[in-house]
Amino acid sequence: MQRRNFIKESSLTVIGMGVFGSLLSNNKKAGTVLRVNEQRIESRIFELAKFGKDANGRGYRVAYTKGDIEARAWYMDLMKKAGLDVRIDYAGNIIGKRKGKNPSLKSIAFGSHIDMVPDGGNYDGCVGSIGALEIIEVLNENNITTSHPFELIIFSNEEGGTIGSMAMAGHLTKEGLKQVSPSGLTIAEGIKAIGGNPDSIQSSIRKKGDIKAFFELHIEQGGILEKENLQIGVVEGIVGIVHWEATVEGFANHAGTTPMNMRKDALLAASKFIIAVNEEINSVPGKQVGTIGKIAAMPGAYNVIPGKVTLGLEIRDLSSQKIEQLFLKIQKRAAAIANNSKTKISFLRQANASRPALTDKTLQQIITASAKALGFTTKLMQSGAGHDAQEIALIAPVAMIFVPSVGGISHSPKEFTKAVDMANGANVLLQAVLQLDKE
Amino acid sequence: MQRRNFIKESSLTVIGMGVFGSLLSNNKKAGTVLRVNEQRIESRIFELAKFGKDANGRGYRVAYTKGDIEARAWYMDLMKKAGLDVRIDYAGNIIGKRKGKNPSLKSIAFGSHIDMVPDGGNYDGCVGSIGALEIIEVLNENNITTSHPFELIIFSNEEGGTIGSMAMAGHLTKEGLKQVSPSGLTIAEGIKAIGGNPDSIQSSIRKKGDIKAFFELHIEQGGILEKENLQIGVVEGIVGIVHWEATVEGFANHAGTTPMNMRKDALLAASKFIIAVNEEINSVPGKQVGTIGKIAAMPGAYNVIPGKVTLGLEIRDLSSQKIEQLFLKIQKRAAAIANNSKTKISFLRQANASRPALTDKTLQQIITASAKALGFTTKLMQSGAGHDAQEIALIAPVAMIFVPSVGGISHSPKEFTKAVDMANGANVLLQAVLQLDKE
Repeated sequence: MQRRNFIKESSLTVIGMGVFGSLLSNNKKAGTVLRVNEQRIESRIFELAKFGKDANGRGYRVAYTKGDIEARAWYMDLMKKAGLDVRIDYAGNIIGKRKGKNPSLKSIAFGSHIDMVPDGGNYDGCVGSIGALEIIEVLNENNITTSHPFELIIFSNEEGGTIGSMAMAGHLTKEGLKQVSPSGLTIAEGIKAIGGNPDSIQSSIRKKGDIKAFFELHIEQGGILEKENLQIGVVEGIVGIVHWEATVEGFANHAGTTPMNMRKDALLAASKFIIAVNEEINSVPGKQVGTIGKIAAMPGAYNVIPGKVTLGLEIRDLSSQKIEQLFLKIQKRAAAIANNSKTKISFLRQANASRPALTDKTLQQIITASAKALGFTTKLMQSGAGHDAQEIALIAPVAMIFVPSVGGISHSPKEFTKAVDMANGANVLLQAVLQLDKE
Repeated sequence: MQRRNFIKESSLTVIGMGVFGSLLSNNKKAGTVLRVNEQRIESRIFELAKFGKDANGRGYRVAYTKGDIEARAWYMDLMKKAGLDVRIDYAGNIIGKRKGKNPSLKSIAFGSHIDMVPDGGNYDGCVGSIGALEIIEVLNENNITTSHPFELIIFSNEEGGTIGSMAMAGHLTKEGLKQVSPSGLTIAEGIKAIGGNPDSIQSSIRKKGDIKAFFELHIEQGGILEKENLQIGVVEGIVGIVHWEATVEGFANHAGTTPMNMRKDALLAASKFIIAVNEEINSVPGKQVGTIGKIAAMPGAYNVIPGKVTLGLEIRDLSSQKIEQLFLKIQKRAAAIANNSKTKISFLRQANASRPALTDKTLQQIITASAKALGFTTKLMQSGAGHDAQEIALIAPVAMIFVPSVGGISHSPKEFTKAVDMANGANVLLQAVLQLDKE
């Protein structure tokens, strides 16, 4: 803990103004506004971090592995202690329900995930999961019963492709169940290992309209909030992602005996292509990103001119149309490079594309107003990463709250978010769900 | 066989002119000039090609493997049938000696190698080996006893780093013996497997001046002779080779959440570097070549900006000074790229550098004159590939004769040299060694 929580009585002077002006006044107890316990959040983050280590002590809470299963048991135990009615659905999602005053109302849901990429960090997914549990703790401590039922959802295997939320939204296929997850188990085997039932996966589907709203608190995983010195990101949408495998074909030949002007060097052409991708992505305004993250050159020896290079191209944006337009421009550049370098460049679109998902405008406004009422600076921003909320958007209005990532680092042991920022995010989530409960 | 041998009686009209004018007149028997047997060369090339195949039927006569050992036995049997006094030296080199009239004269040596790169072709090394044996056959058939002793040498493990010739030249170290060869055996184990004795490797050294001259017939492995429609390459030298491992360090980060202007993309910087290397190599006149044949990007996933890239840089030229000057220019370019892309680029010079080796001027002249006397077109050229002759140049005057490679292809199953070209090269070798024998 480096700073104390920002919420002070003085910030309550904003109460009473604007659409959501009454926001904080309704949950004051004994003269103070409801607030989460920053120390409890931080100590639970540290406890959760102990689950799942590889032989070298690096974080390895990969879905369906021992560390994941143990962390889930620990978390479910906390949920039960908090009085939630806990179950595991057929897709292995953990769902904890808290009754509301009016059982005919739809649930307000919130949560995240606790699985991790290999050698990952302790904040991605965890902040939202521990933050969600904190909402329940604060309501319990203040003897508050909401009108709507509340649901705390921990989705299974987010990092392996938002599997749990995909199942809940109804488009995890039989083919998908057969795919091998990073744990080494198939998705079906993994779901079984964490207490789900892949044979009845259809029973995990939630109908559209069944949930009133889904909120996800998450670390930004980028450096924008930190760079601009802002406290809360209000997510306007989650980008779509398309992957292509690009193949550059030249001709492998002896690097000593083939004169420079007689070469068909696939790696030289690939280098020009990598630069062209970067130029095209930067050629239009907007927040789109494009990356070549993978490369392999064949045969791959000091003394052989590469005859073939494969590349992994990824483009992300909030607009599918923009992704496709950028790809068309990239294809044109590739054709010109191939022509000039006597190589051939082809593309294979990968099957794992994810559609962009926009968050709900009303929920965005509730979050912004909650944050402002608490005295926090905010920014409307997109999520460059995929999230369970993206899947749930198919069946319910969704919203996401971002808190700063130090150095913008994510999917790395260096991933870090300050305790005060985790608490700020959880306080915004608390105010937002209470506000929605009143509507 | 697509064409008949070029040697006709009409080409003998050149005899009697110039310094080497008497060249062909001295070895005429019954009115015809000595000539190799093109069909015997070709059928032996096909026979040799049968030794050493992998499970998929691809050429795999890698030094020290079963195919190499069987091919050596087959070749030694042919040497013995040709009356040579055959031995295996301590480094596993096969040496066949043919007595001369004057035992006090130094040996004239010639030969090549019969081992192969994995998935290699049937001509690299083989043409020179079968061609060398053909010289012995022709001398036997014509009952010719030369003045000098002749030595036919088949060097061991050329493709794994000219190991046999390196040992003969006296600089195969104890450390070198411990290195693992592509066969999976260490060099020491491999030498033992083919009948050598690594414990007495020093005994395989030939003293400087012990051999009068060493000739190597070889396929060009490049496309220059074919492109210029020439028959014989007279090698002026074998290029030096230096390898560096270049490392580009950026920062690995989430490809979705890191805006384009906040990236330190090691692969993007590496691409600029690859292009810069190509530009610098092409920026000065000459036959130098520079290649990036290897690349690895870490961590290597679609959704992670590469944080680190390693590259294999190779530069070859007949002048060591030129190699170093080019590397200095490349280093400067790398520094500028690193600076502009917020990355770091460093170089690690590899220990396996080979010095350029110039061939002997007098031997070059003998080869050129022999070829011209036979009516062949010639070109003075460098060898871009390393050869055993490069090592033997440390202890004896050396010469190399190149014949065309179809399509310039080498180290590939597509490697091919026409029978007529193999015979032309062997005929030039035959005339050259006979001419030297008279001097």
